[in-house]
Amino acid sequence: MKKESNIKKDAAIVVIGNEILSGRTQDLNVSFLSKWLNDLGVRVIEVRIIEDKETSIISTVNELKNKFKYIFTTGGIGPTHDDITSKSIAKAFKLKYDFHKEAFKILEEYYTPAKFSEGRKKMAKIPEGASLIYNPSSGAPGFIVENVYCLPGVPSILKSMVSGIKNKIIGGKKILSKTINIQSVESEIAKSLENIQSKFKSIEIGSYPFFRLGKIGVSIVIRSTDKKKIDDCYEEIVSFLKMKKINMIGKK
Amino acid sequence: MKKESNIKKDAAIVVIGNEILSGRTQDLNVSFLSKWLNDLGVRVIEVRIIEDKETSIISTVNELKNKFKYIFTTGGIGPTHDDITSKSIAKAFKLKYDFHKEAFKILEEYYTPAKFSEGRKKMAKIPEGASLIYNPSSGAPGFIVENVYCLPGVPSILKSMVSGIKNKIIGGKKILSKTINIQSVESEIAKSLENIQSKFKSIEIGSYPFFRLGKIGVSIVIRSTDKKKIDDCYEEIVSFLKMKKINMIGKK
Repeated sequence: MKKESNIKKDAAIVVIGNEILSGRTQDLNVSFLSKWLNDLGVRVIEVRIIEDKETSIISTVNELKNKFKYIFTTGGIGPTHDDITSKSIAKAFKLKYDFHKEAFKILEEYYTPAKFSEGRKKMAKIPEGASLIYNPSSGAPGFIVENVYCLPGVPSILKSMVSGIKNKIIGGKKILSKTINIQSVESEIAKSLENIQSKFKSIEIGSYPFFRLGKIGVSIVIRSTDKKKIDDCYEEIVSFLKMKKINMIGKK
Repeated sequence: MKKESNIKKDAAIVVIGNEILSGRTQDLNVSFLSKWLNDLGVRVIEVRIIEDKETSIISTVNELKNKFKYIFTTGGIGPTHDDITSKSIAKAFKLKYDFHKEAFKILEEYYTPAKFSEGRKKMAKIPEGASLIYNPSSGAPGFIVENVYCLPGVPSILKSMVSGIKNKIIGGKKILSKTINIQSVESEIAKSLENIQSKFKSIEIGSYPFFRLGKIGVSIVIRSTDKKKIDDCYEEIVSFLKMKKINMIGKK
Protein backbone atom coordinates (compact mmCIF):
# COMPACT_ATOMS: atom_id res chain seq x y z
CA MET A 1 0.00 0.00 0.00
CA LYS A 2 1.28 3.40 -0.96
CA LYS A 3 1.70 5.63 2.08
CA GLU A 4 -0.48 8.73 2.15
CA SER A 5 2.61 10.88 2.65
CA ASN A 6 4.01 9.74 -0.72
CA ILE A 7 1.00 10.88 -2.70
CA LYS A 8 1.12 14.55 -3.55
CA LYS A 9 -2.09 16.33 -2.68
CA ASP A 10 -3.69 18.75 -5.13
CA ALA A 11 -2.82 22.32 -4.23
CA ALA A 12 -1.79 24.74 -1.53
CA ILE A 13 -1.85 28.53 -1.51
CA VAL A 14 0.79 30.58 0.28
CA VAL A 15 -0.26 34.16 0.96
CA ILE A 16 2.84 36.26 1.61
CA GLY A 17 2.16 39.52 3.36
CA ASN A 18 2.39 41.25 6.72
CA GLU A 19 -0.59 43.40 5.73
CA ILE A 20 -2.84 40.33 5.78
CA LEU A 21 -1.42 39.07 9.08
CA SER A 22 -1.88 42.46 10.74
CA GLY A 23 -5.52 42.52 9.66
CA ARG A 24 -4.97 45.72 7.71
CA THR A 25 -5.87 44.11 4.40
CA GLN A 26 -8.60 41.56 3.85
CA ASP A 27 -7.30 38.72 1.68
CA LEU A 28 -9.49 38.10 -1.36
CA ASN A 29 -7.13 35.94 -3.42
CA VAL A 30 -7.72 32.67 -1.57
CA SER A 31 -11.42 32.48 -2.41
CA PHE A 32 -10.80 33.55 -6.01
CA LEU A 33 -7.98 31.05 -6.61
CA SER A 34 -9.85 28.25 -4.85
CA LYS A 35 -12.91 28.67 -7.03
CA TRP A 36 -10.80 29.00 -10.18
CA LEU A 37 -8.88 25.83 -9.30
CA ASN A 38 -12.06 23.97 -8.37
CA ASP A 39 -13.34 24.63 -11.88
CA LEU A 40 -10.16 23.03 -13.22
CA GLY A 41 -10.70 20.00 -11.00
CA VAL A 42 -8.00 20.95 -8.51
CA ARG A 43 -8.78 21.08 -4.79
CA VAL A 44 -7.05 23.52 -2.49
CA ILE A 45 -6.13 21.46 0.56
CA GLU A 46 -4.23 23.99 2.63
CA VAL A 47 -3.57 27.72 2.81
CA ARG A 48 -0.78 29.40 4.73
CA ILE A 49 -0.53 33.10 5.37
CA ILE A 50 3.04 34.02 6.26
CA GLU A 51 5.24 37.04 6.89
CA ASP A 52 7.33 38.94 4.33
CA LYS A 53 10.37 37.19 5.74
CA GLU A 54 12.95 35.25 3.78
CA THR A 55 13.28 32.37 6.24
CA SER A 56 9.50 31.93 6.47
CA ILE A 57 9.05 31.91 2.69
CA ILE A 58 11.91 29.46 2.16
CA SER A 59 10.83 27.00 4.83
CA THR A 60 7.15 27.12 3.88
CA VAL A 61 7.80 26.62 0.17
CA ASN A 62 10.33 23.87 0.76
CA GLU A 63 7.90 22.03 2.99
CA LEU A 64 4.85 22.39 0.76
CA LYS A 65 6.43 21.81 -2.66
CA ASN A 66 6.99 18.17 -1.78
CA LYS A 67 3.51 17.65 -0.38
CA PHE A 68 1.40 19.27 -3.12
CA LYS A 69 1.18 19.07 -6.90
CA TYR A 70 0.71 22.83 -7.18
CA ILE A 71 1.73 25.68 -4.93
CA PHE A 72 0.44 29.17 -5.63
CA THR A 73 2.06 32.09 -3.87
CA THR A 74 0.48 35.53 -3.80
CA GLY A 75 2.20 38.78 -2.95
CA GLY A 76 5.70 40.15 -2.65
CA ILE A 77 6.71 40.44 -6.30
CA GLY A 78 6.48 44.23 -6.62
CA PRO A 79 9.22 46.86 -6.75
CA THR A 80 9.69 47.79 -3.08
CA HIS A 81 12.04 46.61 -0.33
CA ASP A 82 9.35 44.47 1.28
CA ASP A 83 8.83 42.50 -1.97
CA ILE A 84 11.13 39.56 -1.36
CA THR A 85 9.22 36.63 -2.81
CA SER A 86 11.33 36.21 -5.99
CA LYS A 87 14.62 36.28 -4.13
CA SER A 88 13.34 33.90 -1.45
CA ILE A 89 11.95 31.41 -3.97
CA ALA A 90 15.33 31.45 -5.75
CA LYS A 91 17.00 30.58 -2.44
CA ALA A 92 14.42 27.89 -1.67
CA PHE A 93 15.28 26.17 -4.98
CA LYS A 94 19.01 27.04 -4.74
CA LEU A 95 18.79 28.99 -8.01
CA LYS A 96 20.50 32.19 -9.02
CA TYR A 97 18.38 35.33 -8.65
CA ASP A 98 19.09 37.60 -11.57
CA PHE A 99 17.60 39.58 -14.44
CA HIS A 100 15.41 37.46 -16.69
CA LYS A 101 15.97 38.55 -20.30
CA GLU A 102 12.37 38.33 -21.44
CA ALA A 103 10.98 39.87 -18.26
CA PHE A 104 13.44 42.72 -18.60
CA LYS A 105 12.40 43.25 -22.23
CA ILE A 106 8.70 43.24 -21.31
CA LEU A 107 9.23 45.88 -18.64
CA GLU A 108 11.58 47.92 -20.85
CA GLU A 109 8.85 48.08 -23.48
CA TYR A 110 6.12 48.75 -20.93
CA TYR A 111 7.78 51.82 -19.40
CA THR A 112 9.37 54.82 -21.09
CA PRO A 113 13.15 54.89 -20.48
CA ALA A 114 12.81 57.72 -17.95
CA LYS A 115 10.21 55.73 -16.01
CA PHE A 116 12.17 52.45 -16.02
CA SER A 117 13.51 52.98 -12.51
CA GLU A 118 15.64 50.72 -10.36
CA GLY A 119 12.53 49.47 -8.53
CA ARG A 120 10.88 48.56 -11.79
CA LYS A 121 14.03 46.84 -13.04
CA LYS A 122 13.99 44.77 -9.85
CA MET A 123 10.70 43.24 -11.00
CA ALA A 124 12.65 41.57 -13.85
CA LYS A 125 14.80 39.69 -11.35
CA ILE A 126 13.49 36.19 -10.84
CA PRO A 127 14.94 32.73 -10.15
CA GLU A 128 17.12 31.48 -13.02
CA GLY A 129 15.31 29.22 -15.47
CA ALA A 130 11.84 30.17 -14.22
CA SER A 131 9.11 30.55 -16.84
CA LEU A 132 7.04 33.69 -16.92
CA ILE A 133 3.39 34.25 -16.12
CA TYR A 134 2.35 37.15 -18.31
CA ASN A 135 0.59 40.17 -16.86
CA PRO A 136 -1.86 41.82 -19.22
CA SER A 137 -2.81 44.54 -16.76
CA SER A 138 0.41 46.02 -15.40
CA GLY A 139 3.44 44.60 -17.22
CA ALA A 140 5.41 42.96 -14.43
CA PRO A 141 5.20 39.18 -14.86
CA GLY A 142 4.86 36.42 -12.30
CA PHE A 143 6.84 33.22 -12.69
CA ILE A 144 6.86 29.45 -12.28
CA VAL A 145 9.64 27.38 -10.72
CA GLU A 146 8.88 23.66 -10.93
CA ASN A 147 5.46 23.32 -9.23
CA VAL A 148 5.48 26.76 -7.59
CA TYR A 149 3.43 29.50 -9.28
CA CYS A 150 4.22 33.01 -8.06
CA LEU A 151 1.49 35.60 -8.49
CA PRO A 152 1.09 39.17 -7.27
CA GLY A 153 -0.97 40.22 -4.26
CA VAL A 154 -3.20 42.83 -5.87
CA PRO A 155 -6.43 40.91 -6.60
CA SER A 156 -7.31 42.64 -9.89
CA ILE A 157 -3.84 42.00 -11.33
CA LEU A 158 -3.79 38.41 -10.09
CA LYS A 159 -7.17 37.78 -11.73
CA SER A 160 -5.91 39.14 -15.05
CA MET A 161 -2.95 36.74 -15.02
CA VAL A 162 -4.42 33.33 -14.25
CA SER A 163 -5.89 32.68 -17.69
CA GLY A 164 -2.30 32.47 -18.95
CA ILE A 165 -1.52 29.46 -16.75
CA LYS A 166 -4.81 27.61 -17.17
CA ASN A 167 -3.34 25.16 -19.71
CA LYS A 168 -0.50 24.25 -17.33
CA ILE A 169 -2.83 23.03 -14.60
CA ILE A 170 -3.84 19.42 -15.04
CA GLY A 171 -6.79 18.76 -12.82
CA GLY A 172 -8.99 15.79 -12.18
CA LYS A 173 -12.72 15.80 -12.68
CA LYS A 174 -14.39 19.10 -11.97
CA ILE A 175 -15.68 19.34 -8.42
CA LEU A 176 -19.44 19.85 -8.57
CA SER A 177 -21.66 21.12 -5.83
CA LYS A 178 -25.30 21.59 -5.00
CA THR A 179 -26.58 23.82 -2.22
CA ILE A 180 -29.83 23.65 -0.28
CA ASN A 181 -30.70 26.68 1.81
CA ILE A 182 -33.14 26.06 4.61
CA GLN A 183 -35.04 28.04 7.21
CA SER A 184 -33.88 26.12 10.24
CA VAL A 185 -30.91 25.67 12.53
CA GLU A 186 -28.09 23.12 12.35
CA SER A 187 -29.18 21.17 15.41
CA GLU A 188 -32.52 20.34 13.75
CA ILE A 189 -30.81 18.57 10.88
CA ALA A 190 -27.62 17.28 12.50
CA LYS A 191 -28.73 13.68 13.10
CA SER A 192 -30.38 13.14 9.70
CA LEU A 193 -27.48 14.73 7.89
CA GLU A 194 -25.02 12.51 9.74
CA ASN A 195 -26.99 9.44 8.67
CA ILE A 196 -26.97 10.56 5.06
CA GLN A 197 -23.24 11.31 5.26
CA SER A 198 -22.59 7.73 6.48
CA LYS A 199 -24.57 6.40 3.54
CA PHE A 200 -22.75 8.58 0.97
CA LYS A 201 -19.19 8.19 2.24
CA SER A 202 -17.45 9.50 -0.89
CA ILE A 203 -19.47 12.71 -0.88
CA GLU A 204 -18.64 15.78 1.15
CA ILE A 205 -21.67 17.20 2.95
CA GLY A 206 -21.13 20.48 4.73
CA SER A 207 -23.60 22.50 6.75
CA TYR A 208 -23.08 26.22 7.27
CA PRO A 209 -25.31 28.42 9.40
CA PHE A 210 -26.00 31.86 8.04
CA PHE A 211 -27.43 35.07 9.43
CA ARG A 212 -28.34 37.46 6.69
CA LEU A 213 -30.95 40.10 6.11
CA GLY A 214 -32.14 39.46 9.65
CA LYS A 215 -32.93 35.82 8.89
CA ILE A 216 -31.22 32.76 10.21
CA GLY A 217 -30.80 29.61 8.20
CA VAL A 218 -28.43 26.87 7.12
CA SER A 219 -26.81 26.14 3.79
CA ILE A 220 -26.31 22.45 3.16
CA VAL A 221 -23.60 21.98 0.54
CA ILE A 222 -23.04 18.67 -1.27
CA ARG A 223 -19.71 18.34 -3.10
CA SER A 224 -18.35 15.58 -5.29
CA THR A 225 -16.98 14.94 -8.76
CA ASP A 226 -19.86 12.49 -9.38
CA LYS A 227 -23.03 14.21 -10.55
CA LYS A 228 -25.22 11.14 -10.11
CA LYS A 229 -24.17 10.73 -6.49
CA ILE A 230 -24.78 14.41 -5.79
CA ASP A 231 -28.28 14.09 -7.23
CA ASP A 232 -29.06 10.97 -5.20
CA CYS A 233 -27.74 12.58 -2.03
CA TYR A 234 -29.69 15.75 -2.79
CA GLU A 235 -32.94 13.78 -3.14
CA GLU A 236 -32.39 12.07 0.21
CA ILE A 237 -31.75 15.38 1.93
CA VAL A 238 -34.79 16.99 0.31
CA SER A 239 -36.99 14.10 1.38
CA PHE A 240 -35.94 14.29 5.04
CA LEU A 241 -36.44 18.06 4.99
CA LYS A 242 -39.97 17.57 3.65
CA MET A 243 -40.65 14.90 6.25
CA LYS A 244 -39.46 17.24 9.00
CA LYS A 245 -41.49 20.10 7.45
CA ILE A 246 -38.36 22.26 7.17
CA ASN A 247 -38.75 25.07 4.61
CA MET A 248 -36.31 25.19 1.74
CA ILE A 249 -35.54 28.73 0.56
CA GLY A 250 -36.15 29.26 -3.16
CA LYS A 251 -37.83 25.86 -3.56
CA LYS A 252 -41.50 24.95 -3.30
CA MET B 1 22.72 32.40 22.25
CA LYS B 2 19.20 31.07 22.47
CA LYS B 3 18.15 29.38 19.26
CA GLU B 4 15.26 31.02 17.42
CA SER B 5 13.38 27.72 17.40
CA ASN B 6 13.33 27.66 21.20
CA ILE B 7 11.56 31.00 21.53
CA LYS B 8 7.83 30.75 21.11
CA LYS B 9 6.47 33.26 18.65
CA ASP B 10 3.36 35.28 19.45
CA ALA B 11 0.31 33.74 17.79
CA ALA B 12 -1.04 31.62 14.98
CA ILE B 13 -4.59 31.24 13.71
CA VAL B 14 -5.91 27.94 12.40
CA VAL B 15 -9.04 28.28 10.28
CA ILE B 16 -10.79 24.92 10.09
CA GLY B 17 -13.25 24.61 7.24
CA ASN B 18 -13.70 23.10 3.81
CA GLU B 19 -16.05 25.97 2.95
CA ILE B 20 -13.15 28.43 3.13
CA LEU B 21 -10.83 26.16 1.12
CA SER B 22 -13.43 25.66 -1.61
CA GLY B 23 -13.86 29.41 -1.94
CA ARG B 24 -17.54 29.15 -1.07
CA THR B 25 -17.16 31.27 2.05
CA GLN B 26 -14.93 34.31 2.43
CA ASP B 27 -13.04 34.14 5.71
CA LEU B 28 -13.49 37.25 7.83
CA ASN B 29 -12.18 35.97 11.16
CA VAL B 30 -8.46 36.29 10.40
CA SER B 31 -8.56 40.05 9.92
CA PHE B 32 -10.82 40.52 12.95
CA LEU B 33 -8.70 38.36 15.27
CA SER B 34 -5.44 39.87 13.99
CA LYS B 35 -6.58 43.39 14.72
CA TRP B 36 -7.99 42.39 18.10
CA LEU B 37 -4.72 40.67 19.04
CA ASN B 38 -2.64 43.58 17.74
CA ASP B 39 -4.47 45.84 20.16
CA LEU B 40 -3.45 43.48 22.96
CA GLY B 41 0.18 43.60 21.81
CA VAL B 42 0.12 40.15 20.22
CA ARG B 43 1.30 39.67 16.65
CA VAL B 44 -0.20 37.01 14.42
CA ILE B 45 2.79 35.39 12.70
CA GLU B 46 1.11 32.64 10.72
CA VAL B 47 -2.32 31.54 9.59
CA ARG B 48 -3.25 28.11 8.31
CA ILE B 49 -6.50 27.22 6.64
CA ILE B 50 -7.07 23.48 6.79
CA GLU B 51 -9.70 20.85 6.01
CA ASP B 52 -12.38 19.52 8.35
CA LYS B 53 -10.26 16.41 8.74
CA GLU B 54 -9.13 14.84 11.97
CA THR B 55 -5.57 14.06 10.88
CA SER B 56 -5.06 17.59 9.52
CA ILE B 57 -6.35 19.25 12.67
CA ILE B 58 -4.25 17.01 14.93
CA SER B 59 -0.99 17.45 13.01
CA THR B 60 -1.43 21.20 12.55
CA VAL B 61 -2.26 21.85 16.19
CA ASN B 62 0.53 19.60 17.43
CA GLU B 63 3.05 21.39 15.24
CA LEU B 64 1.94 24.92 16.04
CA LYS B 65 1.28 24.63 19.78
CA ASN B 66 5.00 24.23 20.38
CA LYS B 67 5.99 27.11 18.12
CA PHE B 68 3.54 29.78 19.27
CA LYS B 69 2.41 31.24 22.57
CA TYR B 70 -1.20 31.34 21.45
CA ILE B 71 -3.11 29.32 18.89
CA PHE B 72 -6.63 30.35 17.93
CA THR B 73 -8.77 27.92 16.00
CA THR B 74 -11.96 28.99 14.28
CA GLY B 75 -14.72 26.72 13.06
CA GLY B 76 -15.92 23.19 13.55
CA ILE B 77 -17.46 23.40 17.03
CA GLY B 78 -21.12 23.27 15.99
CA PRO B 79 -23.66 20.45 16.21
CA THR B 80 -23.29 18.70 12.85
CA HIS B 81 -21.27 15.72 11.62
CA ASP B 82 -18.65 17.99 9.97
CA ASP B 83 -17.92 19.75 13.28
CA ILE B 84 -14.95 17.73 14.49
CA THR B 85 -12.68 20.33 16.06
CA SER B 86 -13.40 19.45 19.72
CA LYS B 87 -12.85 15.75 19.20
CA SER B 88 -9.68 16.35 17.17
CA ILE B 89 -8.20 18.76 19.72
CA ALA B 90 -8.88 16.17 22.43
CA LYS B 91 -6.93 13.62 20.38
CA ALA B 92 -4.10 16.10 19.69
CA PHE B 93 -3.64 16.57 23.44
CA LYS B 94 -4.40 12.89 24.24
CA LEU B 95 -7.35 13.94 26.41
CA LYS B 96 -10.72 12.29 26.88
CA TYR B 97 -13.52 13.79 24.79
CA ASP B 98 -16.67 13.81 26.87
CA PHE B 99 -19.51 15.91 28.23
CA HIS B 100 -18.28 18.95 30.16
CA LYS B 101 -20.54 19.47 33.17
CA GLU B 102 -20.71 23.26 33.01
CA ALA B 103 -21.05 23.35 29.22
CA PHE B 104 -23.89 20.81 29.46
CA LYS B 105 -25.61 22.91 32.11
CA ILE B 106 -25.28 26.08 30.04
CA LEU B 107 -26.84 24.41 27.01
CA GLU B 108 -29.52 22.70 29.11
CA GLU B 109 -30.59 26.08 30.43
CA TYR B 110 -30.32 27.76 27.02
CA TYR B 111 -32.68 25.35 25.29
CA THR B 112 -36.09 24.06 26.35
CA PRO B 113 -35.96 20.31 27.10
CA ALA B 114 -37.76 19.51 23.83
CA LYS B 115 -35.20 21.52 21.87
CA PHE B 116 -32.13 20.06 23.60
CA SER B 117 -31.43 17.60 20.81
CA GLU B 118 -28.59 15.15 20.38
CA GLY B 119 -26.74 17.60 18.10
CA ARG B 120 -26.99 20.34 20.68
CA LYS B 121 -25.85 17.99 23.43
CA LYS B 122 -22.79 17.22 21.29
CA MET B 123 -21.73 20.85 21.64
CA ALA B 124 -21.16 20.16 25.38
CA LYS B 125 -18.55 17.52 24.53
CA ILE B 126 -15.07 19.00 24.76
CA PRO B 127 -11.58 17.81 25.77
CA GLU B 128 -11.41 16.85 29.46
CA GLY B 129 -10.14 19.62 31.71
CA ALA B 130 -10.57 22.35 29.12
CA SER B 131 -11.82 25.71 30.35
CA LEU B 132 -14.79 27.31 28.70
CA ILE B 133 -15.03 30.41 26.54
CA TYR B 134 -18.50 31.77 27.17
CA ASN B 135 -20.82 32.59 24.30
CA PRO B 136 -23.19 35.48 25.00
CA SER B 137 -24.90 35.25 21.61
CA SER B 138 -25.83 31.62 21.05
CA GLY B 139 -25.14 29.54 24.17
CA ALA B 140 -22.62 26.96 22.93
CA PRO B 141 -19.23 27.73 24.46
CA GLY B 142 -15.74 27.53 22.99
CA PHE B 143 -12.89 26.18 25.06
CA ILE B 144 -9.22 26.46 25.93
CA VAL B 145 -6.74 23.59 26.18
CA GLU B 146 -3.31 24.80 27.30
CA ASN B 147 -2.40 27.49 24.73
CA VAL B 148 -5.06 26.54 22.18
CA TYR B 149 -8.21 28.70 22.09
CA CYS B 150 -11.08 27.16 20.13
CA LEU B 151 -13.66 29.56 18.73
CA PRO B 152 -16.59 29.13 16.36
CA GLY B 153 -16.53 29.95 12.65
CA VAL B 154 -19.53 32.28 12.45
CA PRO B 155 -17.96 35.77 12.62
CA SER B 156 -20.71 37.45 14.63
CA ILE B 157 -20.63 34.74 17.29
CA LEU B 158 -16.82 34.72 17.40
CA LYS B 159 -16.79 38.49 17.88
CA SER B 160 -19.22 38.24 20.79
CA MET B 161 -16.97 35.71 22.55
CA VAL B 162 -13.50 37.24 22.49
CA SER B 163 -14.07 39.81 25.24
CA GLY B 164 -14.33 36.87 27.65
CA ILE B 165 -10.75 35.78 26.95
CA LYS B 166 -9.13 39.21 26.80
CA ASN B 167 -7.71 38.94 30.33
CA LYS B 168 -6.05 35.62 29.52
CA ILE B 169 -3.94 37.04 26.69
CA ILE B 170 -0.68 38.52 27.93
CA GLY B 171 0.70 40.65 25.15
CA GLY B 172 3.71 42.86 24.80
CA LYS B 173 3.52 46.53 23.95
CA LYS B 174 0.67 47.47 21.68
CA ILE B 175 1.69 47.50 18.03
CA LEU B 176 1.16 51.01 16.70
CA SER B 177 0.91 52.06 13.10
CA LYS B 178 0.77 55.15 10.96
CA THR B 179 -0.35 55.19 7.35
CA ILE B 180 0.50 57.63 4.57
CA ASN B 181 -1.63 57.40 1.44
CA ILE B 182 -0.05 58.85 -1.67
CA GLN B 183 -1.03 59.55 -5.27
CA SER B 184 1.83 57.70 -6.90
CA VAL B 185 3.05 54.22 -7.75
CA GLU B 186 5.35 51.94 -5.77
CA SER B 187 8.27 52.20 -8.21
CA GLU B 188 8.51 55.94 -7.62
CA ILE B 189 9.14 55.50 -3.92
CA ALA B 190 10.92 52.13 -3.84
CA LYS B 191 14.51 53.37 -3.57
CA SER B 192 13.86 56.10 -0.97
CA LEU B 193 11.71 53.78 1.10
CA GLU B 194 14.43 51.14 1.05
CA ASN B 195 16.95 53.69 2.33
CA ILE B 196 14.64 54.72 5.14
CA GLN B 197 13.99 51.06 6.01
CA SER B 198 17.76 50.46 6.32
CA LYS B 199 17.99 53.43 8.65
CA PHE B 200 15.03 52.31 10.82
CA LYS B 201 15.81 48.60 11.07
CA SER B 202 13.51 47.84 14.01
CA ILE B 203 10.51 49.38 12.26
CA GLU B 204 8.33 47.59 9.74
CA ILE B 205 7.64 49.68 6.66
CA GLY B 206 5.18 48.19 4.19
CA SER B 207 3.99 49.62 0.91
CA TYR B 208 0.70 48.54 -0.59
CA PRO B 209 -0.64 49.67 -3.94
CA PHE B 210 -4.36 50.37 -4.10
CA PHE B 211 -6.87 50.88 -6.86
CA ARG B 212 -10.07 52.33 -5.51
CA LEU B 213 -12.75 54.65 -6.75
CA GLY B 214 -10.92 54.74 -10.08
CA LYS B 215 -7.77 56.13 -8.48
CA ILE B 216 -4.43 54.45 -8.08
CA GLY B 217 -2.16 55.09 -5.17
CA VAL B 218 0.03 53.54 -2.51
CA SER B 219 -0.43 53.16 1.22
CA ILE B 220 2.81 53.34 3.15
CA VAL B 221 2.34 51.71 6.55
CA ILE B 222 4.81 52.14 9.41
CA ARG B 223 4.47 49.67 12.29
CA SER B 224 6.29 49.42 15.58
CA THR B 225 5.69 49.33 19.32
CA ASP B 226 7.78 52.52 19.68
CA LYS B 227 5.77 55.68 19.04
CA LYS B 228 8.82 57.94 18.92
CA LYS B 229 10.45 55.83 16.21
CA ILE B 230 7.23 55.74 14.19
CA ASP B 231 7.05 59.53 14.35
CA ASP B 232 10.69 59.96 13.31
CA CYS B 233 10.28 57.52 10.44
CA TYR B 234 7.04 59.23 9.41
CA GLU B 235 8.78 62.60 9.24
CA GLU B 236 11.54 61.21 7.03
CA ILE B 237 9.02 59.67 4.66
CA VAL B 238 6.97 62.84 4.50
CA SER B 239 10.07 64.90 3.74
CA PHE B 240 11.16 62.73 0.82
CA LEU B 241 7.60 62.74 -0.52
CA LYS B 242 7.59 66.54 -0.40
CA MET B 243 11.00 66.65 -2.06
CA LYS B 244 9.76 64.38 -4.83
CA LYS B 245 6.55 66.43 -5.10
CA ILE B 246 4.42 63.36 -4.47
CA ASN B 247 0.91 64.23 -3.27
CA MET B 248 -0.23 62.85 0.03
CA ILE B 249 -3.96 62.09 0.18
CA GLY B 250 -5.74 63.81 3.05
CA LYS B 251 -2.68 65.88 3.98
CA LYS B 252 -1.63 69.32 2.81
